[in-house]
Amino acid sequence: MSEPTLYPESGFLRLRIDLAYDGTNYSGWAKQPDRRTIQEEIEKALSTITQSPIETIVAGRTDAGVHASGQVIHVDIPQAFESEDIAFKLNCMLDEDIRILKVTVMTGAFHARFSPTSRSYTYKILDANRVVAPLHRLDVAPWYRALDVNVLNQASALLLGEHDFAAFCKFREGATTVRTLMRFNWIRDDEGYVIAEITANAFCYSMVRNLVGAVVCVAEGRNSYEWISAMLANKERVPDSLVFEARGLTLRHVDYPGGL
Amino acid sequence: MSEPTLYPESGFLRLRIDLAYDGTNYSGWAKQPDRRTIQEEIEKALSTITQSPIETIVAGRTDAGVHASGQVIHVDIPQAFESEDIAFKLNCMLDEDIRILKVTVMTGAFHARFSPTSRSYTYKILDANRVVAPLHRLDVAPWYRALDVNVLNQASALLLGEHDFAAFCKFREGATTVRTLMRFNWIRDDEGYVIAEITANAFCYSMVRNLVGAVVCVAEGRNSYEWISAMLANKERVPDSLVFEARGLTLRHVDYPGGL
Repeated sequence: MSEPTLYPESGFLRLRIDLAYDGTNYSGWAKQPDRRTIQEEIEKALSTITQSPIETIVAGRTDAGVHASGQVIHVDIPQAFESEDIAFKLNCMLDEDIRILKVTVMTGAFHARFSPTSRSYTYKILDANRVVAPLHRLDVAPWYRALDVNVLNQASALLLGEHDFAAFCKFREGATTVRTLMRFNWIRDDEGYVIAEITANAFCYSMVRNLVGAVVCVAEGRNSYEWISAMLANKERVPDSLVFEARGLTLRHVDYPGGL
Repeated sequence: MSEPTLYPESGFLRLRIDLAYDGTNYSGWAKQPDRRTIQEEIEKALSTITQSPIETIVAGRTDAGVHASGQVIHVDIPQAFESEDIAFKLNCMLDEDIRILKVTVMTGAFHARFSPTSRSYTYKILDANRVVAPLHRLDVAPWYRALDVNVLNQASALLLGEHDFAAFCKFREGATTVRTLMRFNWIRDDEGYVIAEITANAFCYSMVRNLVGAVVCVAEGRNSYEWISAMLANKERVPDSLVFEARGLTLRHVDYPGGL
């Protein structure tokens, strides 16, 4: 079921499932042998409820420790199955760190992975060595030095547009690293957290955490704006950049055509 | 060291320590055999750092699963010990679900437990069967039915003042249940959480969670305002009231004379 089929096979219903999770205790979205993953938990629950083997297709394959507040998947379930109350039933079976937000029967063309026009993430940092509040620690990355949001924004603006982001992606044989970065914007919120809002048509593996690391290098005065531009142009990962940790990263939203 | 001694013994320094914790994975503040408690974690860390056995005195003994964002303790440490950087050293030793916010050497009279003029808690509910966001689940109690904040406030106002709160406390031989409830106020915040702000000179065991349960019984239409007043007057626990779960409860602030 991993080809871009925009409709379910005959006899099946396509469901869009919107979900959220705290990735702290999972080895990421994608199934792996002997690891607890979000995909496996969801597929197990869906297979139990529908009494048939269910495979999920996901919009954004999040890495180990990364969270989601607006992840989207699709599944094809036998038409004979009563699809009401699936969200409620799934939430009864799943741990509280995974929650189903909404289940929608899709009658038009829809593919969770291939239909999106963009994915949006946030990255949340508490800077200047401040103490992370225990109740808010799950999705915050602490950082030692103070960060200037204006510098973060100027450095980030250099990365906007369509580029080969090879310098900011973990190398994977055969995978393209050309992406369109539509938004990379920083704010400091009322509680003092420094938050990046990052949108692209799609992201390659560990790209957001590399982008965050690179602009933090500039905001700290460790590297110049030119260093960012040169890294982008050279398409080579540099050893003096930073990769920020997974827990600051949250998949917020997946955009589908027609504003879905 | 459990008598109300307002000054340390000669040769000792009294430290006030402000701290915060996520109580999810602890059997409450107070030490117990074979249980993981916040007191034990703190005392272990302090004893290691100071190389002497340290006992803590706490402002608010929180129950299993209850959180704190503004807990206060005091400890007496040998004067010879260099007290700088204690917060930093403790935070290096403690898990991230306990954080030291501030350490202050107290030169005047100060007793963490006996000096406070009041303790303030919040209780946070997500009502109407809405799904609790995984990243915000640590300190939220879900509730099935919708709650009317005005009714919650009217029921809560009946409980203000000095009363014998025996009906709202777990019975403990020899312990008084007379308390002064200074504030018991509900709001619905921007994100839709229903939050109680509760202040008293002191609380008896499980009192906040019983108070919350009683006024929710009224807000749901299950019981009347008169039922609240009668329960308070009769000083007897009634079987048809509710005790809300620990995780919605957070100790926010302890007030000391002089606005400390």
